[in-house]
Amino acid sequence: MWSAMAEGDRPLRADAERNRRRLLDAARVLFSERGLEVGVAEIAQRAKVGRGTLFRNFATKEDLIAAVVVDRMADASARGRELLEGEDPTEALFEFLSDLVGRQQLDRALIQAVADEFLANPEIRAANDELVAVLDELLLHAQDAGGVRRDVGALDVLMLFKGVCEAMRSFQHLDPNVAERHLDLVRSALAPREHEQPLRGRIPTLDDLEPARAR
Amino acid sequence: MWSAMAEGDRPLRADAERNRRRLLDAARVLFSERGLEVGVAEIAQRAKVGRGTLFRNFATKEDLIAAVVVDRMADASARGRELLEGEDPTEALFEFLSDLVGRQQLDRALIQAVADEFLANPEIRAANDELVAVLDELLLHAQDAGGVRRDVGALDVLMLFKGVCEAMRSFQHLDPNVAERHLDLVRSALAPREHEQPLRGRIPTLDDLEPARAR
Repeated sequence: MWSAMAEGDRPLRADAERNRRRLLDAARVLFSERGLEVGVAEIAQRAKVGRGTLFRNFATKEDLIAAVVVDRMADASARGRELLEGEDPTEALFEFLSDLVGRQQLDRALIQAVADEFLANPEIRAANDELVAVLDELLLHAQDAGGVRRDVGALDVLMLFKGVCEAMRSFQHLDPNVAERHLDLVRSALAPREHEQPLRGRIPTLDDLEPARAR
Repeated sequence: MWSAMAEGDRPLRADAERNRRRLLDAARVLFSERGLEVGVAEIAQRAKVGRGTLFRNFATKEDLIAAVVVDRMADASARGRELLEGEDPTEALFEFLSDLVGRQQLDRALIQAVADEFLANPEIRAANDELVAVLDELLLHAQDAGGVRRDVGALDVLMLFKGVCEAMRSFQHLDPNVAERHLDLVRSALAPREHEQPLRGRIPTLDDLEPARAR
């Protein structure tokens, strides 16, 4: 019985899943190439699905953008999980950060577009929490391997990461490698050191963000 | 003769200078308290000058905002020059950065308001170059004192500084001391270290920014 139902459902679900995937991919590519003003009709056309299918999947363009954000975050988390399997935990952490920086050019516009509902949207929030959790694991592994100082948490690393992204935007005309140079400085900031003053404040956690999230 | 002219001119020039100063101070306070949408009439009122005096000094509100930006930059540079006289060159550098971070809440809105003409405006550009020159001197002194690594330049420090400002905006609900914690990490990034990988890229200079400035 279960088997019969599953067989009956599978083609339909697989089809629906494929259409959704195509729409997300088309949206990502078009947004990346030409910005968020690309119309949904063109996205449906490129995805080779009808407008009815588009609207069944994403009632508004905002829904589509939010889904692309969730998809991009899930993709980054998956990359982080792959890196967790690598041999050198410290390299894995910095490769993850470098990968995140590379994604920013598109992601920034997307995330700005959903900024108002960012943490109020449960799917974005879950994808964001998963990304922080992956970063947390990569960081712990790197700390256990002695490659990163003990007195920092994932949100400290994210803070530094946001700095790299901002510097990249401000100084991108300076040198295409400005992000790499800044990531090297971040790496220095995070390197374990003897005889160092402790950082002011304490290690921030996701719970500390709750007041901001509740706004 | 020169003496007679100077004496004749002085009260007028001093008066004009005082009015200009009052307008700049009133604009800074009101912009800071209520944002850039404060009207020029209210600024003139607070400065206790007539609207005619306001318009003689600043033909448009944009001119007034640009003048406030130049004034704020000159003030930061003056603070930097003071710090150059201090005893500990490394502390002086980080105190300067901390001071700059503290100024950001107002300065960011101001600088965004003039972003389009930022480097095309010769006065803003000169004030900006002076600020970078002061930072450069503070950095060189700290490097000579052995407190900062040799392979970074003022623009590298500015890159890190922009990161702190961005993190402060993103994580300000986390902890009011988030800027201090991040500045401590910047300090670690800049600390001299043995056996360290060199940074990728080379030390950027203001000349490298020229293509961006010419746009």
